[in-house]
Amino acid sequence: MHSPLLLNADLGEGFGPWRMGNDEVIMPLIHCANIATGFHASDPVTMQRTVRLAVKHDVMIGAHPGYPDKEGFGRRSMACSLEEITAMVIYQVSALQGMCRAEGGVLGYVKPHGALYNDMMEKLPVFEAVLRGVAAVDPSLPLVVLATNNFELYNNEAALQQVTLWPEAFADRAYTKEGLLMARHVKGSVHQTKAAILAQARMIAEHRQVRCHQGTLLDLPVVTLCVHGDNPESVATVADIRNMLDELEQGHA
Amino acid sequence: MHSPLLLNADLGEGFGPWRMGNDEVIMPLIHCANIATGFHASDPVTMQRTVRLAVKHDVMIGAHPGYPDKEGFGRRSMACSLEEITAMVIYQVSALQGMCRAEGGVLGYVKPHGALYNDMMEKLPVFEAVLRGVAAVDPSLPLVVLATNNFELYNNEAALQQVTLWPEAFADRAYTKEGLLMARHVKGSVHQTKAAILAQARMIAEHRQVRCHQGTLLDLPVVTLCVHGDNPESVATVADIRNMLDELEQGHA
Amino acid sequence: MHSPLLLNADLGEGFGPWRMGNDEVIMPLIHCANIATGFHASDPVTMQRTVRLAVKHDVMIGAHPGYPDKEGFGRRSMACSLEEITAMVIYQVSALQGMCRAEGGVLGYVKPHGALYNDMMEKLPVFEAVLRGVAAVDPSLPLVVLATNNFELYNNEAALQQVTLWPEAFADRAYTKEGLLMARHVKGSVHQTKAAILAQARMIAEHRQVRCHQGTLLDLPVVTLCVHGDNPESVATVADIRNMLDELEQGHA
Amino acid sequence: MHSPLLLNADLGEGFGPWRMGNDEVIMPLIHCANIATGFHASDPVTMQRTVRLAVKHDVMIGAHPGYPDKEGFGRRSMACSLEEITAMVIYQVSALQGMCRAEGGVLGYVKPHGALYNDMMEKLPVFEAVLRGVAAVDPSLPLVVLATNNFELYNNEAALQQVTLWPEAFADRAYTKEGLLMARHVKGSVHQTKAAILAQARMIAEHRQVRCHQGTLLDLPVVTLCVHGDNPESVATVADIRNMLDELEQGHA
Repeated sequence: MHSPLLLNADLGEGFGPWRMGNDEVIMPLIHCANIATGFHASDPVTMQRTVRLAVKHDVMIGAHPGYPDKEGFGRRSMACSLEEITAMVIYQVSALQGMCRAEGGVLGYVKPHGALYNDMMEKLPVFEAVLRGVAAVDPSLPLVVLATNNFELYNNEAALQQVTLWPEAFADRAYTKEGLLMARHVKGSVHQTKAAILAQARMIAEHRQVRCHQGTLLDLPVVTLCVHGDNPESVATVADIRNMLDELEQGHA
Repeated sequence: MHSPLLLNADLGEGFGPWRMGNDEVIMPLIHCANIATGFHASDPVTMQRTVRLAVKHDVMIGAHPGYPDKEGFGRRSMACSLEEITAMVIYQVSALQGMCRAEGGVLGYVKPHGALYNDMMEKLPVFEAVLRGVAAVDPSLPLVVLATNNFELYNNEAALQQVTLWPEAFADRAYTKEGLLMARHVKGSVHQTKAAILAQARMIAEHRQVRCHQGTLLDLPVVTLCVHGDNPESVATVADIRNMLDELEQGHA
Repeated sequence: MHSPLLLNADLGEGFGPWRMGNDEVIMPLIHCANIATGFHASDPVTMQRTVRLAVKHDVMIGAHPGYPDKEGFGRRSMACSLEEITAMVIYQVSALQGMCRAEGGVLGYVKPHGALYNDMMEKLPVFEAVLRGVAAVDPSLPLVVLATNNFELYNNEAALQQVTLWPEAFADRAYTKEGLLMARHVKGSVHQTKAAILAQARMIAEHRQVRCHQGTLLDLPVVTLCVHGDNPESVATVADIRNMLDELEQGHA
Repeated sequence: MHSPLLLNADLGEGFGPWRMGNDEVIMPLIHCANIATGFHASDPVTMQRTVRLAVKHDVMIGAHPGYPDKEGFGRRSMACSLEEITAMVIYQVSALQGMCRAEGGVLGYVKPHGALYNDMMEKLPVFEAVLRGVAAVDPSLPLVVLATNNFELYNNEAALQQVTLWPEAFADRAYTKEGLLMARHVKGSVHQTKAAILAQARMIAEHRQVRCHQGTLLDLPVVTLCVHGDNPESVATVADIRNMLDELEQGHA
């Protein structure tokens, strides 16, 4: 059997007077909180409060660094140099690490956000620049990456920096037979029913497999499952996934 | 005799494409580099390069946190809440601490910048908020404050948080008989000759005293002396002060 | 009888991915939209969409400039120089004016936001700096100020710059006998019932008077009434105030 | 004979406490000042002072809008949406237009900066988005573009928006036979001697031609020549180019 699947979600994405998401509701449902680090979202007070909430619920804390672009929420790819990417990862991860210590918590992992995450998966030099940043802060911090068919390529790079990778999958997204996410604008790329989402989550949890859009089963080396809690409906789905995971684990205990 | 006086200066104050100061020239002349932490100046790459330069010259690194206001260079007082001040200190100090580790260095102390420094000296609640931030990151980090006559008040507050204070003095500024800096706009408030600056630096180094504007001698519990290297002339003065301090120390050795 | 009272409200206060308020609901209920200009809130796209919405509903557009501080939403007083204040008013008002032209609208007035508004009412030099900015863009743009007992002082200053003032009052705030708003933290300073708010709005609309906290009637030279639509309850109150004003006007027609 | 060639240069590129370039020296030497508008560089006070300097020297003022990225000085391409590009052009051009009016000047043209300029020349949809922004503010404002062989393509698009294009050339850059600038990293792509720069400037001024790297003559529909004044040497070259242009014009008078 597989080790328990970790649920991760993005939290602490407010900024100044602006709120986003339902952190208080979603925090108790997840295992890992990807906490924004002040470049694409958040500010020091928001970070401190979010870390405090995670510590209260005994949720593992991950740094969620992004491009320096609040207006674009870190979703606009920026042609940053590799030196800039490494330095911005060190800066943001360190800031959150200190905030964790200040709140009696511990930083557990790193997951890049938005366009930085996408760029890292598309361009190996960007991935290496991110890796160097994580390794410079603390090589024992796992780095979350997209679980894909070419995971070995990424894993070999990470091993050079002595960094562990945590491949992640999505319960609500359709996969191509190459193990990539189908583009959002394609029909059928996002599962619309709770039943479909729960079924995909269960198959990942039990078998580390997804049934791809073309119908065949695909093996994915998944450590963590990304979920979203943007609205009441998605929060309810996250709660159901969490219950399913807890039952699986108790069944195996 | 007194322990050696530490020379401190502000460095790493560029931002993006903009440079400020002569970091390469001033770094070898000082003992302590106050490195900007990205709120009033600097960015991750500039921070990394400045830390690297300090490590190369074996200069002690201090975090130099400021208000989030690059346009005003952190010199405009901002009505931040105490919670905001504590959180911004934790964030900035932690970011630089991580950058130090990434470059094989160690963070040595904290010195607030500009309006945050002034507000901290004028308003006890702000000072306490800064103290809480420093203590939350690491209470073994000394905090630089202005050496004044009411140092005991500040020292008592710091002791509650188990933080050590490093009072600092200025070689080029005239003092009132109350041990405060004369306001810059007052005639005679800034020493204009190298001889006057060197004499004041020597008196502080040898006796921890300054001759105040009214003529009497004033005892100040100085640990560190703040210098500036904005232009070739001031750099030359810093070099002379450093030579004087080195000679004093060798004489005592 | 008095000229019709203009209802004004703050709109377009989102930023990047973050929303604030219910612009679509509140816009049709008001006469004047104070649109954020990108320093304390908003961005070019948000401004354009908000201007478009105002034009669609034939609502008068006001520029709502603030301090350059999104994290603090322009509510933290900043020690800006007078030159900086004048220049930031020119910049922000001009940007919105151009956006109005681009959308087939016309800029109608200026109302400073948050701490800039408060500072302007407390410090005459700040008020003069704001006035110079408005006059430099277009002296025919009225400037909204707090309706107080010392209105003549402000009016005389404005006349020197040939700027018209629009004093504003609040329907939901208690007044001191000096014509100032009672501080928010004082009990009774904010009216809690819709009946009390409507009564104060009606008295202002019909008689340009408020009954101050001590019970006496106070004359205020009000041109515009500031309302808020932060939640469904306050939106309902705004709708009722608007209906009341429309009925008053029809009664007089 | 050709109409006089207009010299343009980037000015007003400081930010807050940071300076860049020698605006006071270069301003009297040029015909057109591309003034930064606060997104990639500058702030309201810097803009006001730069506009004032241009008005004093009777230099035509151009808006120099860029991506919202001061840390990267607008040189990092950002994946902005077309709606965002149009809106950021309207915002920035309008802000500078108002600043011109405030200083008794007139906005004369628009020239995008850095990565926005490059993206506009590489991606037609970006160019169209910029055009819509310029046209929305004032279609009588010319838009500066790179003079290339496919100028007709750009000109046709501009005509649809009733915007006039001003193709620009460079005196210090080598051209390919397709009329494109040789990439900077290629040897020989930047002319190193003042003689070579002056010769290219003269050929453009007299004949609207450049001798491309392969040796053949190339016709370019140049209206304006871009120069840089980053250091004393380049300032001297600009002065020589200006003298040459003035002599040409007097010879024709």
